[in-house]
Amino acid sequence: MRPLTSTIPLDEAKRIINDTIRAIDRTERIALLDATGRVLASEIVSTVDVPPFARAAMDGFAVRAEDTFGTSRSEPRVLRRIECVFTGQVAQRRIGAGECIEIATGAPLPDGADAVVMVEDTEVSGDMIRVLAPVVPRQNVGRQGSDIEAGQRVLPSGDALTPSRVGSIAALGIPTIDVYARPRVAILSTGNEIVEPGQPLAPGHIHDINKYTLASIVSMHGGVAVPYRTVSDTIDDLSRAVDEALNEDILVFSGGSSVGERDLILDIIAAKGDVLFHGISVKPGKPTAFGVIGGKPVFGMPGYPTSCLTNAYILLVPALRRIARLPALEPRTVTLPLGQRVVSATGRHQFYTVRIENGVAMPAFKASGDITSMSRADGYIEIPEHTDIVEPDTIVTVTLF
Amino acid sequence: MRPLTSTIPLDEAKRIINDTIRAIDRTERIALLDATGRVLASEIVSTVDVPPFARAAMDGFAVRAEDTFGTSRSEPRVLRRIECVFTGQVAQRRIGAGECIEIATGAPLPDGADAVVMVEDTEVSGDMIRVLAPVVPRQNVGRQGSDIEAGQRVLPSGDALTPSRVGSIAALGIPTIDVYARPRVAILSTGNEIVEPGQPLAPGHIHDINKYTLASIVSMHGGVAVPYRTVSDTIDDLSRAVDEALNEDILVFSGGSSVGERDLILDIIAAKGDVLFHGISVKPGKPTAFGVIGGKPVFGMPGYPTSCLTNAYILLVPALRRIARLPALEPRTVTLPLGQRVVSATGRHQFYTVRIENGVAMPAFKASGDITSMSRADGYIEIPEHTDIVEPDTIVTVTLF
Repeated sequence: MRPLTSTIPLDEAKRIINDTIRAIDRTERIALLDATGRVLASEIVSTVDVPPFARAAMDGFAVRAEDTFGTSRSEPRVLRRIECVFTGQVAQRRIGAGECIEIATGAPLPDGADAVVMVEDTEVSGDMIRVLAPVVPRQNVGRQGSDIEAGQRVLPSGDALTPSRVGSIAALGIPTIDVYARPRVAILSTGNEIVEPGQPLAPGHIHDINKYTLASIVSMHGGVAVPYRTVSDTIDDLSRAVDEALNEDILVFSGGSSVGERDLILDIIAAKGDVLFHGISVKPGKPTAFGVIGGKPVFGMPGYPTSCLTNAYILLVPALRRIARLPALEPRTVTLPLGQRVVSATGRHQFYTVRIENGVAMPAFKASGDITSMSRADGYIEIPEHTDIVEPDTIVTVTLF
Repeated sequence: MRPLTSTIPLDEAKRIINDTIRAIDRTERIALLDATGRVLASEIVSTVDVPPFARAAMDGFAVRAEDTFGTSRSEPRVLRRIECVFTGQVAQRRIGAGECIEIATGAPLPDGADAVVMVEDTEVSGDMIRVLAPVVPRQNVGRQGSDIEAGQRVLPSGDALTPSRVGSIAALGIPTIDVYARPRVAILSTGNEIVEPGQPLAPGHIHDINKYTLASIVSMHGGVAVPYRTVSDTIDDLSRAVDEALNEDILVFSGGSSVGERDLILDIIAAKGDVLFHGISVKPGKPTAFGVIGGKPVFGMPGYPTSCLTNAYILLVPALRRIARLPALEPRTVTLPLGQRVVSATGRHQFYTVRIENGVAMPAFKASGDITSMSRADGYIEIPEHTDIVEPDTIVTVTLF
């Protein structure tokens, strides 16, 4: 058996991963209606003015502003309505002195008009419109190109698409856009004991958890989870599985990287590429490996479900988001007193899951194999390498899941 | 033209919506691999123990603990290796006094053994294993059912599925689950001037923005956006569109609820159901209507893109999440000095978009028709009804988009 002789600090592991991965270059054209959360692969430059014409910003009457100067409720001016334009229509006539055109919000300003008197400042009797307040030129008018001008760079390449950015592209009349492809993440569980949920368990076998937690977390952070078949603990099967999985952008194995006769993942990475580290001084998640095969990053996650998922949060998610060109996650944290004494392994940076109950952080951790400890947790606290005990009532920072 | 005579405060609008909507009851069965972000529609009770057997928690040697009592590096005890079990295998033999079985992490504990000596505490020469440290019964052993016991309620109905909860269900061997259906949201843009992106614009026409921003925000908050065709401003077309859209769970119109001869949405809601409010004392977004037709909530959003999107964030998202049974969004806020004077409309609760630049909140708002003002904004500040001016350097709370 090969012991895990040396471990590296978490920060160094993060740095190595960061120096290794590259943001995805593959792009694809998609419908704008499907673009939320995607990342623009080319800048959006407008070829049109938005709005494409000067338009009424209020329901009312399009006028020549000068015809309204000096008016008031006590000294109204009567203008003659010569037409009525609804939104989507264009006035057929040009406004002359003493004339007005009734206009709906959003309709194009008629020729000859330079302002809109809002309906609340008028009195209507037939086609005689009494204007009760003056307007200045351009009042209640949306200028052509006031939102976006032709030639304007509306969004730079690399922008992640929010609802308002999707709307900005729609405003330009663009129905399809180029975005970066979502990184495809091959997810492979290794181990002779691993059985798909839905299949019966033989003695000594357990159901696959890691394929499910990894696929779930990948789908939440801009990746396409590509679950592969379970790989048995032979160098041949593992080698075949790696060759198939190299079709994807990222490879994530779980299991097979702990100490033991069967830590074949390392042998495979070393044979087909380079092992960049094996072993991190964190708990849980110490037996984590990372390497590169054919330019593709390969994560060897621990087999224990909570170790695997914790390391996915800490190492895989930031890497995946950078590859997907998504903005880094700002951690959501809360500061609370600890409800119970926590004992930590010295010499390892520990992630300790907690549940928030009545404003207090309660330990939720059972054992690193216990997935239920995470499903009941709200987040985790970090205990530095050289701290072994954290007393109750200590104020701790909980990073929320 | 019908003026918007009375408006209600924002809180009242929220209360009315809240009192009207009902959480969705429709359920569907889906694959566990697709379950992330979905909401459980029935509780998950385990029928099995996880792990299903007592297992080695370390690589090492399964022993009778009593055989190791009193051992030390200076006084080791030699045990005879009678077998070797890898993970996924079951020992064929039973351990007797003075015997041990080599065991890999995760393999079932052999009959007769009650503890595991970790490999680091042994010396191996052939089948003679020198034990260098004692273990107590159950040491380095994961108890059967230690994570989940048969009969245990693992997750309650109504839980939103995170990666760890998906993993908990996988652990039970369950491949498909019942979840609540995602509310289907009919999205309808009204207006003769509205044209789909990709189609050419006739004079006086503009491209549809709201259908895209609304579909985008709906897809981010647990809904299925169902874009409908654009509806023209006739009572007949609108009536037909409403009848079609009643197949969905929620109806969201944009446009057609402002003052004007064509505010037909209100007439349609009143004819087919009940208008519960029309007009909120907020800016932007005053001409917002809400009602019920055939038990389905109907939102009449303003036509102006920023007004429509702002009200979607403020009114539609909380309602949609409640209907979808998702947890309420905790707003993410930052506290910053304001970089520029902001003048607000008194008498209306104002939402003012801002961009964060060098630690200062800078106004990003141009006009309520301007979608670009939102696509460049990081969030918004709220200015209460009775404040008309906020001076530079005032500390403001920015709610991030």
